[in-house]
Amino acid sequence: MPAQPSHNAPVSGSDPLRADARENRDRILRAAREAYALHGIDVPISAIARRAGVGVATLYRRFPTRAALIEEAFAEQLAECAGVLDEALEDPDPWRAFSSVFTQVCAMQAADRGFTHAFLARFPDEPSYVGERDRAEEGLALLVRRAKEAGALRPDFDVSDVVLALLANSGVVNGVQPEAGAASRRLVGYLLESFRTEGAVRPLPPPVRLELEQLYGAG
Amino acid sequence: MPAQPSHNAPVSGSDPLRADARENRDRILRAAREAYALHGIDVPISAIARRAGVGVATLYRRFPTRAALIEEAFAEQLAECAGVLDEALEDPDPWRAFSSVFTQVCAMQAADRGFTHAFLARFPDEPSYVGERDRAEEGLALLVRRAKEAGALRPDFDVSDVVLALLANSGVVNGVQPEAGAASRRLVGYLLESFRTEGAVRPLPPPVRLELEQLYGAG
Repeated sequence: MPAQPSHNAPVSGSDPLRADARENRDRILRAAREAYALHGIDVPISAIARRAGVGVATLYRRFPTRAALIEEAFAEQLAECAGVLDEALEDPDPWRAFSSVFTQVCAMQAADRGFTHAFLARFPDEPSYVGERDRAEEGLALLVRRAKEAGALRPDFDVSDVVLALLANSGVVNGVQPEAGAASRRLVGYLLESFRTEGAVRPLPPPVRLELEQLYGAG
Repeated sequence: MPAQPSHNAPVSGSDPLRADARENRDRILRAAREAYALHGIDVPISAIARRAGVGVATLYRRFPTRAALIEEAFAEQLAECAGVLDEALEDPDPWRAFSSVFTQVCAMQAADRGFTHAFLARFPDEPSYVGERDRAEEGLALLVRRAKEAGALRPDFDVSDVVLALLANSGVVNGVQPEAGAASRRLVGYLLESFRTEGAVRPLPPPVRLELEQLYGAG
């Protein structure tokens, strides 16, 4: 694993890249986002280079690792996701906080297949990524605990059920085109119905040990 | 589309195939079922022939069309599925009837990826198959109507929600190995919770127009 290259840092006013190099870089990132959204993050690097109209060597010069390209391509959405979580953690209504994060993450998954792959899959050699994912997991666990303590979320809800629900949502998103968004909203509506405490709660089959990285490959 | 070949009929005591030919046939069907279960029904014919240890020409001699092979490979499970539906249509308890079919079909989907593909995908050139699928759709619609009339199923439930749920289940089944069965049971438990009428029903996002053949390719 090479050291983090400097051109992998966020673009700022002091960015040393010349204008044409930056243009190349933006074109690659745009092509990567499009390809990931259509085909998931397993799309070959050569297909991204072709889509961007650059050579594979040029692409590798800008983004020496697959993970570096993925991280840069989704930096904006990653920030959006972190924002959703931060906002929910500030919300005084525990059910609204939990259900809003769940709803928005499912909507992001419906809008862009690649993003959920990229955000939730495990990239062990990308420390900044792992940090983001751990932070997301901790935030989610806190939202779940608060919603349960408030009596709004059923007591037998398990944090792993969030992954279960995202996998279910991925099945709907992958199977329904072009109405992935509407189908996903319907599913999310049903799932929130079943998560919320309402009258007598019938026992569910036991939770399954699920890790976020199991979403990798599920679309 | 060639006429239905006679060797495509169920094997019986009067089957004209010689013993070794029948052995070949059984080996091909076993290999097909294994390959479909592992990889879905899009697995190449050549891979099935290789798994069966026969040449592609031999396979085509026994099963001249892809659809004929699929139909024969799943004949037993198709009969099981029809049995589940028939039994439910006889059940005097409308909720038990509906939820039992839903539960069992999801369990079959979890146990064998290929089967749901094969049963639910559209094979327009296989009339017997289309007949089975139409019968399943009508049976399901009847179960849904009865469960609603009994006040057990929420009034805004749409028949297309069965497909939505099967797509969701496919996402879980494909994403969770080897615990697909347990994860699927958990999801089914949640979904049945949300389908059942219980106290006040909050409005859901509107249903999406979904056809069974959209399950094709979703795993």
